[in-house]
Amino acid sequence: MSETDTLLARRAVGAQSSAVRELLKYSRTPGIISLAGGIPAPDLFDIQGLEAALGEELRARTRDTFQYGMTEGEAGLRDQIATLAGKRGLHAGAHNVLVTTGSQQALDLVARVFLNPEDTIVVERPAYLAALQAFAFSEARMLSVPSGADGIDLDRVEALFASERVKAIYVVPNFANPSGGTLTLDRRRRLVELAARHRVLIFEDDPYGDLRLRGRALPSLFEIAGQTPGARDLVVYMSTFSKILSPGLRMGWMVIPDAYYSNVAIAKQAIDLHSCTLSQRIVERYLASGRLGERLPILRDAYAVRCEALCSSLERHLGDAIEFNRPDGGMFLWARFRDDVDASAVLARAIEAGVVFVPGSAFFVDEPQRNTLRLSYSTITPETADEAGRRLAIALEESVG
Amino acid sequence: MSETDTLLARRAVGAQSSAVRELLKYSRTPGIISLAGGIPAPDLFDIQGLEAALGEELRARTRDTFQYGMTEGEAGLRDQIATLAGKRGLHAGAHNVLVTTGSQQALDLVARVFLNPEDTIVVERPAYLAALQAFAFSEARMLSVPSGADGIDLDRVEALFASERVKAIYVVPNFANPSGGTLTLDRRRRLVELAARHRVLIFEDDPYGDLRLRGRALPSLFEIAGQTPGARDLVVYMSTFSKILSPGLRMGWMVIPDAYYSNVAIAKQAIDLHSCTLSQRIVERYLASGRLGERLPILRDAYAVRCEALCSSLERHLGDAIEFNRPDGGMFLWARFRDDVDASAVLARAIEAGVVFVPGSAFFVDEPQRNTLRLSYSTITPETADEAGRRLAIALEESVG
Repeated sequence: MSETDTLLARRAVGAQSSAVRELLKYSRTPGIISLAGGIPAPDLFDIQGLEAALGEELRARTRDTFQYGMTEGEAGLRDQIATLAGKRGLHAGAHNVLVTTGSQQALDLVARVFLNPEDTIVVERPAYLAALQAFAFSEARMLSVPSGADGIDLDRVEALFASERVKAIYVVPNFANPSGGTLTLDRRRRLVELAARHRVLIFEDDPYGDLRLRGRALPSLFEIAGQTPGARDLVVYMSTFSKILSPGLRMGWMVIPDAYYSNVAIAKQAIDLHSCTLSQRIVERYLASGRLGERLPILRDAYAVRCEALCSSLERHLGDAIEFNRPDGGMFLWARFRDDVDASAVLARAIEAGVVFVPGSAFFVDEPQRNTLRLSYSTITPETADEAGRRLAIALEESVG
Repeated sequence: MSETDTLLARRAVGAQSSAVRELLKYSRTPGIISLAGGIPAPDLFDIQGLEAALGEELRARTRDTFQYGMTEGEAGLRDQIATLAGKRGLHAGAHNVLVTTGSQQALDLVARVFLNPEDTIVVERPAYLAALQAFAFSEARMLSVPSGADGIDLDRVEALFASERVKAIYVVPNFANPSGGTLTLDRRRRLVELAARHRVLIFEDDPYGDLRLRGRALPSLFEIAGQTPGARDLVVYMSTFSKILSPGLRMGWMVIPDAYYSNVAIAKQAIDLHSCTLSQRIVERYLASGRLGERLPILRDAYAVRCEALCSSLERHLGDAIEFNRPDGGMFLWARFRDDVDASAVLARAIEAGVVFVPGSAFFVDEPQRNTLRLSYSTITPETADEAGRRLAIALEESVG
């Protein structure tokens, strides 16, 4: 584990973010297969369901649809979200739910409300870049701990909690972006116990939890904290409708313990007053329609097929030259070239060969593993998956040859 | 003018904000006439136009409507906004336009990007409370300068620019909330010249400019800066569709000089990635339809009638007991009880009598004028205006009697 100078990290995160943005342009370049995006598959959007919800709202003919709303979110939507959270095992009332402008805003809110300059926050290595961007704005000190297929390394976390005064830890327990890793049940319990012992806040970010492709769902850190003495108020849970319904609506949500709720709501008021009323009404009606329950299996099946297609293509075309773990869910495959091949160098060849990915080094604030890469399977087909593997093999061969 | 301790200001702003939020609940209480809101009249929403834009967007059947979008905003909307800005005399390209999640986000963005702790920002006294909230988060030092019917006092501003190292000044030049004041043309020119001489940034907030009820539009500070040597890059312009189309869509916008554009866009990326795609497409199609040009005169005429109704009701029922200036536009009347009557004390009686307003003291970070009050005429009718004046007179009489 290593300490990161805040300003350097901020600059690095900014530069990496620009680099990733730059890569996104290839997602619309004809002839290029993009494994670089982090976007949900548009062909899986439930357009019919979204239009039905929208039509219902318009037929209700309430001018409130277009009027200012409450900072905390529309009451009906907060009720629906509390129900959804309950299905995930989070027992909290609607009064603990805050609607956010995407889960990016939830990250910004926790950074603003809880992190002061000089505070210390522990993050995973690698970690979700946009979360690091939000934290960097607070000028908090970020300490990174390695995280793999089983989630963050708890021995390192324990040592850090014991040796440093840590304010918060940020984890994506389910199918993390970019690592694809899932925090095991044992580690979840241990993390909550450690947090309780050292009074460390846990920022639990769960955008992908409903996209489990195999195995059984694990309890959230929020749920475990509710059963752990001294931990009840320590977890702030964040999620979103971006991966399971529509990212364009910018609908995220948080479950916030009573003790902090009003502070977070007051911060949101200063940030954007409230989130789009129309989006909120659409999501509220969509959830009330019960369609999400029918839709999730469709999404899971489709992503499972795409994940498998990419995995088998990589095995077929790259064989021993690459290694990766099959993720239990989500949208990302975290892979590693053998022999310490620099993924950024391969990327240059890959673009020529007609395939793009994100070099893993973009997801480290420090000590980057240069042979890693993040591959998204969310928008591929069996054909493009095969072709992507073939092109990647060509790029790798040209790069090392 | 006076200096404000940042932490005290932050606490005060928070408390005032909660007090104003508390008052808003009366806007839906049966039997109470609310002059407290800052909301546009829902009966004036162009529902037909909004639905037409929405219908067009859905018929276009592009899944991009629900997908992630660019942080800067949808390209088509940025073009439309550049055209709208041009009509207001702001000559800037679409590449200078940033779409924001309401203009509250624009305020948050300028605070985040330009203000560091210990920086000094000059604000009007009284000032828009939510702007002060956004600035308070930056922990910048806020210095307030009196502002009246003709806008901010430029002699005081000049003295301050000369004696302090000022980073930025925040002004609402047209029909400010809460003062209703409009910065005169001479003062606009002088403010830009002063800013150029002392290299002070101007945050120009213009939510109400299109709601001019009488007289001719004055050039924006942004436009004047474009013609003033050394001032070209000093003005960041902010506006919104909240007052002229729909606040619920959360669509604000900024025109940002080239020198700062990418810094602001990167900050927005960390804050909420991008604003609601659906809202953007609705506004884009609405602007493309040309309906706004037909709508604005309808809004202006309606607000002019409401403004006059409130003014004459106050004159009729309160006579000499209250004084105010007729605003040239916007939605607010700034009034003052004679004889230093405390508006907060009157409010308590007013609620009993069935009318609410916001005591003016809520809009001061320091040196509050306790006899002031803000009255919104946006949602009243001739009948409720008359009754509001009658009730206010009763409340005042009971309060002083």
